[in-house]
Amino acid sequence: MKLFIGNFFPDEVKLQDEEEHHITRVLRMSSGENIYITDGKGNLAQGKLILTGKRVEVEILEIFPPEQPKKNRLHIAIAPTKNIDRFEFFIEKATELGVSEITPLLCANSERKNLKIEKIQKQVESACKQSLRTIFPIIHPLTPLKEFMEKEPENLFLTHCYKEYKKVSLKDILPQPNKTTILIGPEGDFSKKEVEELYSLGATGVDLGKNRLRTETAGIFVAAGYWFSDLS
Amino acid sequence: MKLFIGNFFPDEVKLQDEEEHHITRVLRMSSGENIYITDGKGNLAQGKLILTGKRVEVEILEIFPPEQPKKNRLHIAIAPTKNIDRFEFFIEKATELGVSEITPLLCANSERKNLKIEKIQKQVESACKQSLRTIFPIIHPLTPLKEFMEKEPENLFLTHCYKEYKKVSLKDILPQPNKTTILIGPEGDFSKKEVEELYSLGATGVDLGKNRLRTETAGIFVAAGYWFSDLS
Repeated sequence: MKLFIGNFFPDEVKLQDEEEHHITRVLRMSSGENIYITDGKGNLAQGKLILTGKRVEVEILEIFPPEQPKKNRLHIAIAPTKNIDRFEFFIEKATELGVSEITPLLCANSERKNLKIEKIQKQVESACKQSLRTIFPIIHPLTPLKEFMEKEPENLFLTHCYKEYKKVSLKDILPQPNKTTILIGPEGDFSKKEVEELYSLGATGVDLGKNRLRTETAGIFVAAGYWFSDLS
Repeated sequence: MKLFIGNFFPDEVKLQDEEEHHITRVLRMSSGENIYITDGKGNLAQGKLILTGKRVEVEILEIFPPEQPKKNRLHIAIAPTKNIDRFEFFIEKATELGVSEITPLLCANSERKNLKIEKIQKQVESACKQSLRTIFPIIHPLTPLKEFMEKEPENLFLTHCYKEYKKVSLKDILPQPNKTTILIGPEGDFSKKEVEELYSLGATGVDLGKNRLRTETAGIFVAAGYWFSDLS
């Protein structure tokens, strides 16, 4: 089963231009092959390829009932790692594991202060196609922690390594009935000042176990815990 | 806190030769700095560096009571991915998440038929040092599935994508009281013949949820589920 990205109109489903190139030049698919198309917002259609010369047309065979977004969504706000490969790996895994929203965070101890969000977006799309997701996670731009706190002050959880602050186990907070937002700091952790600001805002510390986890491992682990707690 | 690898003798703790180079040339540490030393088998000591010229000595300050291996161990047997980076990422994450044993599997649909086990071993050591583990996971050589089944025929679980075989949720099998062995197939999945052989041996199919997960994601997810189910 191959999934591609397209746009859904009231009376038409249209492949994205880039996907046409992908179908003919990269995958070298043939007329008559079946494909699936999604808009990343829950819509899904099945169609048959009709290739004539350089043109790619799709005969739509079926439009499925749209997938509904989950109620118990997970938003991970995480400082991108210095080594971008590690962050990209987190992005791919979090997407495959069904995280709903990701905000790259800029913190006091962040070693990485910039991020090509278009590249991240491409990886998200690719991971969604691979894992057959029809609802793509929302990727926010790199956001300073302070701004994030002002925008999303409620129901925040944060992971950190300081021993002097109270924490609850990740196991006890997943799944929440609605949206959970979990913050993960950079390689040098949140600064003490940041942790205190978050706690004073009502955020709850989350314990991820006794061993030290890398930033991206903490992120993947939180995403996996979310998926795990949601298994039937 | 910096952790290094050494050997523990009845009356002495000795750093591995490679670690000496690492301390002086790579990390450029100084006399008087405190370090921790483990043998990867649960032993842990704290010591103070004494550097004279090119020689590295350690004054042992404390030897801690050895860490006991966990009863509910997890053994992941997994087919290495075609793209070795993905497999190495799995190895690092599984190690950080405390998996006890890893066997790279050779299956009917394996695209990768060889593996440099020494390189994998190095990565395991590096991940253990980073995440402060004093019991290192056991890494077995690349093993044909048939041989693995003969060696470890009991309490096997396997993940696969075939819909016609009965499966239980990962959530329902973790944590087991003793050792759990979970098999994860290659990019093309286990062959139907392999799945049938495993089931006829008494293995149980495990469901990882409705979305398609890549081989290494399935591996990381199983490791994360193990860590998650073991959180206090």
